[in-house]
Amino acid sequence: MAKMKGLAMLDFDTIGWVEKEIPKAGPTDAICKPLAISPCTSDVHTVWEKALGARHDLILGHEASAEVVEVGALVKDFKVGDKVIIPAITPDWEAVESQAGYSQHSKGMLNGWKFSNTKDGTFAEYFHVNQADGNMAHLPDGISVEDAAMLSDMVPTGFHGANNAEVEYGDTVVVIGIGPVGLMAVAGSVLRGAGRVFGVGSRTTCREAAKYYGATDLINYRDGDIVEQITEAMNGKPVDKVILAGGGLETFDQAVRLVKPGGIVSNINYLGTGDYIKIPRVEWGLGMGHIRIIGGLMPGGRKNMEYLSRMLLHGRLDVSPLLTHKYNRLEDLEEALLLMKDKPKDLIKPIVSIA
Amino acid sequence: MAKMKGLAMLDFDTIGWVEKEIPKAGPTDAICKPLAISPCTSDVHTVWEKALGARHDLILGHEASAEVVEVGALVKDFKVGDKVIIPAITPDWEAVESQAGYSQHSKGMLNGWKFSNTKDGTFAEYFHVNQADGNMAHLPDGISVEDAAMLSDMVPTGFHGANNAEVEYGDTVVVIGIGPVGLMAVAGSVLRGAGRVFGVGSRTTCREAAKYYGATDLINYRDGDIVEQITEAMNGKPVDKVILAGGGLETFDQAVRLVKPGGIVSNINYLGTGDYIKIPRVEWGLGMGHIRIIGGLMPGGRKNMEYLSRMLLHGRLDVSPLLTHKYNRLEDLEEALLLMKDKPKDLIKPIVSIA
Amino acid sequence: MAKMKGLAMLDFDTIGWVEKEIPKAGPTDAICKPLAISPCTSDVHTVWEKALGARHDLILGHEASAEVVEVGALVKDFKVGDKVIIPAITPDWEAVESQAGYSQHSKGMLNGWKFSNTKDGTFAEYFHVNQADGNMAHLPDGISVEDAAMLSDMVPTGFHGANNAEVEYGDTVVVIGIGPVGLMAVAGSVLRGAGRVFGVGSRTTCREAAKYYGATDLINYRDGDIVEQITEAMNGKPVDKVILAGGGLETFDQAVRLVKPGGIVSNINYLGTGDYIKIPRVEWGLGMGHIRIIGGLMPGGRKNMEYLSRMLLHGRLDVSPLLTHKYNRLEDLEEALLLMKDKPKDLIKPIVSIA
Amino acid sequence: MAKMKGLAMLDFDTIGWVEKEIPKAGPTDAICKPLAISPCTSDVHTVWEKALGARHDLILGHEASAEVVEVGALVKDFKVGDKVIIPAITPDWEAVESQAGYSQHSKGMLNGWKFSNTKDGTFAEYFHVNQADGNMAHLPDGISVEDAAMLSDMVPTGFHGANNAEVEYGDTVVVIGIGPVGLMAVAGSVLRGAGRVFGVGSRTTCREAAKYYGATDLINYRDGDIVEQITEAMNGKPVDKVILAGGGLETFDQAVRLVKPGGIVSNINYLGTGDYIKIPRVEWGLGMGHIRIIGGLMPGGRKNMEYLSRMLLHGRLDVSPLLTHKYNRLEDLEEALLLMKDKPKDLIKPIVSIA
Repeated sequence: MAKMKGLAMLDFDTIGWVEKEIPKAGPTDAICKPLAISPCTSDVHTVWEKALGARHDLILGHEASAEVVEVGALVKDFKVGDKVIIPAITPDWEAVESQAGYSQHSKGMLNGWKFSNTKDGTFAEYFHVNQADGNMAHLPDGISVEDAAMLSDMVPTGFHGANNAEVEYGDTVVVIGIGPVGLMAVAGSVLRGAGRVFGVGSRTTCREAAKYYGATDLINYRDGDIVEQITEAMNGKPVDKVILAGGGLETFDQAVRLVKPGGIVSNINYLGTGDYIKIPRVEWGLGMGHIRIIGGLMPGGRKNMEYLSRMLLHGRLDVSPLLTHKYNRLEDLEEALLLMKDKPKDLIKPIVSIA
Repeated sequence: MAKMKGLAMLDFDTIGWVEKEIPKAGPTDAICKPLAISPCTSDVHTVWEKALGARHDLILGHEASAEVVEVGALVKDFKVGDKVIIPAITPDWEAVESQAGYSQHSKGMLNGWKFSNTKDGTFAEYFHVNQADGNMAHLPDGISVEDAAMLSDMVPTGFHGANNAEVEYGDTVVVIGIGPVGLMAVAGSVLRGAGRVFGVGSRTTCREAAKYYGATDLINYRDGDIVEQITEAMNGKPVDKVILAGGGLETFDQAVRLVKPGGIVSNINYLGTGDYIKIPRVEWGLGMGHIRIIGGLMPGGRKNMEYLSRMLLHGRLDVSPLLTHKYNRLEDLEEALLLMKDKPKDLIKPIVSIA
Repeated sequence: MAKMKGLAMLDFDTIGWVEKEIPKAGPTDAICKPLAISPCTSDVHTVWEKALGARHDLILGHEASAEVVEVGALVKDFKVGDKVIIPAITPDWEAVESQAGYSQHSKGMLNGWKFSNTKDGTFAEYFHVNQADGNMAHLPDGISVEDAAMLSDMVPTGFHGANNAEVEYGDTVVVIGIGPVGLMAVAGSVLRGAGRVFGVGSRTTCREAAKYYGATDLINYRDGDIVEQITEAMNGKPVDKVILAGGGLETFDQAVRLVKPGGIVSNINYLGTGDYIKIPRVEWGLGMGHIRIIGGLMPGGRKNMEYLSRMLLHGRLDVSPLLTHKYNRLEDLEEALLLMKDKPKDLIKPIVSIA
Repeated sequence: MAKMKGLAMLDFDTIGWVEKEIPKAGPTDAICKPLAISPCTSDVHTVWEKALGARHDLILGHEASAEVVEVGALVKDFKVGDKVIIPAITPDWEAVESQAGYSQHSKGMLNGWKFSNTKDGTFAEYFHVNQADGNMAHLPDGISVEDAAMLSDMVPTGFHGANNAEVEYGDTVVVIGIGPVGLMAVAGSVLRGAGRVFGVGSRTTCREAAKYYGATDLINYRDGDIVEQITEAMNGKPVDKVILAGGGLETFDQAVRLVKPGGIVSNINYLGTGDYIKIPRVEWGLGMGHIRIIGGLMPGGRKNMEYLSRMLLHGRLDVSPLLTHKYNRLEDLEEALLLMKDKPKDLIKPIVSIA
């Protein structure tokens, strides 16, 4: 049986290359060969923060554009050779949770998240896509394979943060954390009509990118308490929405102190450690302040990929400034992943092209 | 100048009768004389739990039906002698927060709540209603003054819990706390289409009323951990929605453990003590579980009173079972309020008629 | 190859029994044997009003409870012998339209509607269910096979009308047409919190049932213009919502004249004939009156069946009064269908049990 | 008593200058002196299309920025000398319709629209603003009085079209009519995340502006049937949303033919003539296609003005390209209004500054 290699989580705190059998497509599935792959901070949470629990020899990665190399007998809309966008989240679409609008949690909490969680991911010569007709989108002419890989997770996660925050025309939005996901939350907020946008982060590269994507104010937590800094800039008024895209559990307390009654705290940060998120009782209006708290995994699937790709095609969004570090061999994935772990000053996101 | 008496919070932990001037109506206001008054657990929180902070000689009470005795020059829809329903929450309707859909927080968090908070309440011979055309509703024939007083707070608060929980046909809903507000949350859930409804409480009178209002399952926290009891009854499946109408801050942890991804925890409980609400990180889906947490004060105003009164008029809801203890002199308010503080076994809600 | 018989549309205006091969299950499908079947006015529209266009030897019917007799290799949650509820609408759940929340139109307008439209329906000894895990629900103990058949179309269609009308606590709702779907729109409105409910219809049996399901006012178009009758009963005030569940295209004009600015006209009526729906310009606020007009096919699928079945299980809804005419042989389907065409005075809905 | 002059509708088809008393402020009102005024196509509909019915000596105009010259005793947030933005729609905020979210129709359909409809408008030396605290917004530094006048109607109306169309990331949107309101619908669609945007119009100036505001495709009805042109450009696929901002009643038929099941037709066009809007039955899915039809007047009030002004302040929107024709005397209003009636090739919007 044919073998392939992939970069895996061997155990907590340990990654390494493994050899596995090339996966086979069931009747509704596809097998793909990556064209561009990007490592994610989520992989870091999984390996080094024990966030998902134990995994052994699990191939990492959930961001990729790819070429189809095999399709199951029931797949209708894709054929071998097609270039495709693959979302990080690939739900079971017939599940009752999907029918209820929460495909991210098909058949149980987070079970729409399969790559690098419950099955091997995209850091390999080949990978398996379930329900191919529902979980892949054709890569349109005019979008590079590298940009397409940003549609797997960075764009939909950042935009999901803005969607859950229900950003409206003229809203003042705070985005805490301006790594690649936070940057896409900034862009997504602006593309939903935000007026003033605060970006909270310290690294120069990310701060410049935040400006590029539409942040009007940059706040550095190294300069003091961010609640105080933002409240002062707001002349004591609350903001409309806060999107959490970085930091730890303490950001919820900060967010509730910043946001208006009727406002929303929207978390898209994969919370790796800690027991409890703490919501301050008084600032939460003694339980009656109408500050909604929501945290959500990005929606996956084909429809979302098709619609988000139009943002690139029609010039609404340029993801290329995210790609600060470029590689061109599968082997480079290891270095690229360690970059995400170590977060050097000039990093936003590495990309490995293997087209 | 004419004087009146009222039952006031003299200081923390102390209530007593005070004599004050009869309030005057500004151009858009009205002065009313209560016909039926009901004390509320909120008054207990305010006096004995220090929930709102210090208040001196503030007349308590925010639930009443009444008769109009004076109207301002700009009031168009009401005249002296009209019988009216008065909501506990009387917003400034021109405020930007009201325009944004959160009149409860007109001009700042909770500032739609004026009675017994920022001005004298309904426990008096007379009380003042701001923006009368927007904050009173005509009492329709066929609704008693006692039932009408339940429209001030109990019905709209319970129903707001069900509205914020976005109860849908067939939903399984848990209502934690089945005092009068929780009972109205049970009724409100059923009237939004709930299927199975768990009521959590221990007092027999309330449990029987919960059955009457449509609870299918009763859970007693004295019988063990309520999360375990409900999860067992659900064969291990999560519920759709949880409404918090009693208990302390610990109920949020319980609720998050009970509810499905995509579900909602809806708080209508006035949280009187404690620093932080704690949300369990893992059960909240590592921040990505789409369990929404919302807490809100009831919407006030005339429209809400008019629409809710139709529920009584057309026989959709009978509030009379709530009224377990009846009085007929203003002086009895003191005993009635202490009943709400002491919560004897057979109490749901006292009512003082002075028609 | 094994044969079966079924009652088919032979051509426009003609029905008759046909013999066909028993269908086979693909990998994700199931084959079922009906336990209770009910004919629908939609079948009448299809055969005698040419509403869907030409069909030849197409087996009719889309309402049934059933027993599973075959499952495909990929079906996980059902096995031979299981008793199931089958929705009239059985979408392709992986389609982008389903992902966008409109599974009724998976792969194109109305393509979630397959039975008796694009494939053979339930009026046969056996029928085929696509995507069985997503499109069947287990029949719970305590629901009869006859009642279960009402969950296929009558309940979800009527309730969809109330959902699209966004009925809220205390709303005044007009339901035009009180056949079985309209009756379920009455019940669905009450179960979403409607206050006053007008039922418009002339047949005594239906009017009595409308009262039973919660209509407060009955209007008979034989007594004069229904807009005038309702407006008089409302003392000249508009209603909140209108649900169209019967009549022809003229009902839209009536509805727009009845409903308030900010109100909704919700159509669930299968419009069989005519070229244009006409919306009166002035009453529609010169294009700016915020009267929303929506028409929708019921949502199908397993989740909807599971949730609606809880309404029966927990005593929120009793569908048995709908079943006025009962049969117990497959052959009786022909008479039952002609009943739906001829609508005798005492008919609401016929049911054919073959358990 | 002091007099002022204003440009009025004398009768159908006739405008002229009238002399009237300077209005006085009631307790909650303000009197303003315009700084910049812009005539609107609505004024044309009112005078020359008889759209609102008869009016005699009614001062026209509802778009202006202004300076406060008098405030009532109850006005708290504004004082004489303040520069303000005035929305075209100035609701009665305490009305039940406002409380229900439809302030445009406070106290009855369209009654939030007072200027140039039920009271004298802004085409005068002075004008009256009801409920000043709720219906004026402070003009922020950095926004010119001319740009501010575009916030009265053009921006909120265009953006309301996009809001009612519920434009989402990547949506394909058709905007029929690209006069100033249609252009703001294009901009508003892009600012809610639209991908591809079709602008339908023929005048070169408007077509260029549509490109500037983000239209990706321009369609000219002079080149043939617009449904055919757009459908061809879409390779036969439907679009997500259609916004109607121009043309006559026939545009609804076109829109329904263009839009997908689950899509929305959002009208913001003031429909001046004709009896009936006609919706094609088959393309509307036989009544079950989930194509929502909504038409709405812009929301007025202070909150909306404050939020929209942030779009200008933070550089999200530049309205200056709309202002093709500039005047600087009150007397020029007459010529400016006739421009809107005659719509010369190079016109988008005239503005009269009188600062």
